Amino acid sequence: MALIVQKFGGTSLANTERIKNVVKLVIAEKNRGNDVVVVVSAMSGVTSELVGYTREMSSLLTNESLAEYDSIISSGEQVTSGLLALGLQEQGFKSRSFLSWQAGIKTDDFHSKSHIEGINSEILLKHVGKGDVPIIAGFQGVNSHNRISTMGRGGSDTSAVAVAASLKADRCDIYTDVTGVFTADPRIVPEARKLQKVGYHEIIEMASLGAKVLQIRSVEMAIKYNVKVQVLSSFENESGSLLVNDEEIMERRVITAVTHDSQEARVTLESVENTPGISAKIFKPFADQSINIDMIIQNISSDSKYANVTFTINEGELDRAIKLLEEAGDNKEFLYKNIVATRDVAKISVIGVGMKQHPGIAQKVFSILAEKNINIMAITTSEIKISVLINKEYTELAVKLLHKAFELDKKPKLQ
Amino acid sequence: MALIVQKFGGTSLANTERIKNVVKLVIAEKNRGNDVVVVVSAMSGVTSELVGYTREMSSLLTNESLAEYDSIISSGEQVTSGLLALGLQEQGFKSRSFLSWQAGIKTDDFHSKSHIEGINSEILLKHVGKGDVPIIAGFQGVNSHNRISTMGRGGSDTSAVAVAASLKADRCDIYTDVTGVFTADPRIVPEARKLQKVGYHEIIEMASLGAKVLQIRSVEMAIKYNVKVQVLSSFENESGSLLVNDEEIMERRVITAVTHDSQEARVTLESVENTPGISAKIFKPFADQSINIDMIIQNISSDSKYANVTFTINEGELDRAIKLLEEAGDNKEFLYKNIVATRDVAKISVIGVGMKQHPGIAQKVFSILAEKNINIMAITTSEIKISVLINKEYTELAVKLLHKAFELDKKPKLQ
Repeated sequence: MALIVQKFGGTSLANTERIKNVVKLVIAEKNRGNDVVVVVSAMSGVTSELVGYTREMSSLLTNESLAEYDSIISSGEQVTSGLLALGLQEQGFKSRSFLSWQAGIKTDDFHSKSHIEGINSEILLKHVGKGDVPIIAGFQGVNSHNRISTMGRGGSDTSAVAVAASLKADRCDIYTDVTGVFTADPRIVPEARKLQKVGYHEIIEMASLGAKVLQIRSVEMAIKYNVKVQVLSSFENESGSLLVNDEEIMERRVITAVTHDSQEARVTLESVENTPGISAKIFKPFADQSINIDMIIQNISSDSKYANVTFTINEGELDRAIKLLEEAGDNKEFLYKNIVATRDVAKISVIGVGMKQHPGIAQKVFSILAEKNINIMAITTSEIKISVLINKEYTELAVKLLHKAFELDKKPKLQ
Repeated sequence: MALIVQKFGGTSLANTERIKNVVKLVIAEKNRGNDVVVVVSAMSGVTSELVGYTREMSSLLTNESLAEYDSIISSGEQVTSGLLALGLQEQGFKSRSFLSWQAGIKTDDFHSKSHIEGINSEILLKHVGKGDVPIIAGFQGVNSHNRISTMGRGGSDTSAVAVAASLKADRCDIYTDVTGVFTADPRIVPEARKLQKVGYHEIIEMASLGAKVLQIRSVEMAIKYNVKVQVLSSFENESGSLLVNDEEIMERRVITAVTHDSQEARVTLESVENTPGISAKIFKPFADQSINIDMIIQNISSDSKYANVTFTINEGELDRAIKLLEEAGDNKEFLYKNIVATRDVAKISVIGVGMKQHPGIAQKVFSILAEKNINIMAITTSEIKISVLINKEYTELAVKLLHKAFELDKKPKLQ
């Protein structure tokens, strides 16, 4: 008998019909002889609606306001946790909902982006021991001031992995609306294959590059506490993708997936005055405002007084970014001639822990794109990924080319 | 400086625009130099929507199911309490929301119809002392099992009076969508006047007879703890109706109001076997199922073997009632010939603490209706009200006749 933590996302719980479907998935796991603890998100759309209300009421971002924001937007999981418990009771199973203050889920004090600091596993295990199915409202905890604190979008994934870690569960199943993690987006590459296994660090690179499978923090927690995580669909009855240690992947294949992110925007500061520490000056306001800079290209020649600085950010933050740069220019914090921005860019990435042992992957990527005259505007690399910035209109072509070139449509011999 | 508890109902909080209007009402009270504690309902419609979800998921009424039901339907007040706090913060006021587990609002263990057993006034008074405006999620508390427990429809009224009692507030203002309590329903009687003062027991009779101004339990609590309650509108800037001790009313007028209730249904059991204890047998299943019987007419003559038993109930419970009677008949718990039921009845009531000192009111009611050939099917009376059951089509006529006959359209000299 194993202990399984099941996590269901908003699409899986979008209405009572779908919640009844989730009831069946929980019962199926119970009928396999396993103990089950469930973590739920809110019905899809509900959290966004609540966030909308808060924006209509307030423009503040103080700690007091964020405490109210958290209390408001955490209510959606209170509803789904109760409804799922009702559905299980209706089928004759013992089940009850747990809100974070009932399950002793403690967080730090950073409202709206808090981290879990501890879970009172005794309470939950006592109920599991009696054969109950505890249903935990995900995405939230209680902080040291006895206030509800939420964990950022996708936080229920992290709740689920934290619960699995705390209860020493045998597996954490993340049910979502896709059947697993693919070698590329199947909407672009019909030949894309579902991966039976994905390395922890690969999924982190994939998530941050737009695959949006899991909240990254949940994977970091899975690594830290060695939680076995499976991503699978609540709509299709098939096995999903298992997250495993990178070592399990490394011997098997060179490249695991090709991803694309079309939400990028590129900004160039033209003729920036080239002085020591100029980058720090340019990017400080972004750090202060928690705007993530992705790629940076700084073509400063040492003998020139001026240089161009180019960087990419999420396109949703482009307007704020330009405003910050203009303010800095007005305040003469640094001098530049012009700002040029475009949303017509996409980031294409090739990911695989296997590339650690296979040099020349970057070179192969560049050649494949060059053959089709796709211009590369910027490059970033890590040990296990190579990302290139290209013109957005070549997104589909580039992904297809790379997917084929690295033979991702073919099943690796060892997998 | 006074301490005022303000309670806002669902219509007053129906959307963010209306919540901003409530923000103004709170600030106006603060600007009068008073301390304010607020109790809120959910946005109108939200609780019904949540109740609908629970019905779609479950048909159970066990204590475990009701615990989930309570947890689900209490989430609406979590949203409005946070939004109102945000709105006050936005205007520069210190405010925060309190959920029942944060404010120490303890209830008994009867889910979905629980009573408040205590409030940790220290927590709230500490915040009031600092100039904060605490916003309390109404309608709910936490029971001895650390579960959320709700207090029945309209329970936020009772939350507000309980908070006012616990904090020894100078007044409890119940903001709603009417400007106060009227001598009759103004939609039927245009001459109906707003009452400046209403006796506690008068409002209890009025509420139970369909005036739906306040949850009755809140008035009982106001009597017990001597809380000064005002009913007023959040949309009109005018003073409302003040609930006072009956003695303050008694000297001033004979009749206070005429009310009507068109939600009644009448059931007659024909030719019931007339044995001792037959009434107890007939009505026991209703008591077991918490179905309230209103009027009972039992025309049993001592020399007859059979009698007819007629009673009225809320029309929403008619189907269940008939089913119970049929089951009892099938099980031979008591014998009868036939069940006759109709929804074509209305209950008209004349209410006033003053009638204690003025005999002959009942006679006057009967004559007025008799003059217009309105047949009276049943009568119930208390010290301060006379109710008659009539054919539904005479509702409007009867209310108008009685309102005029008791001169309720004219201002009493002493008020």
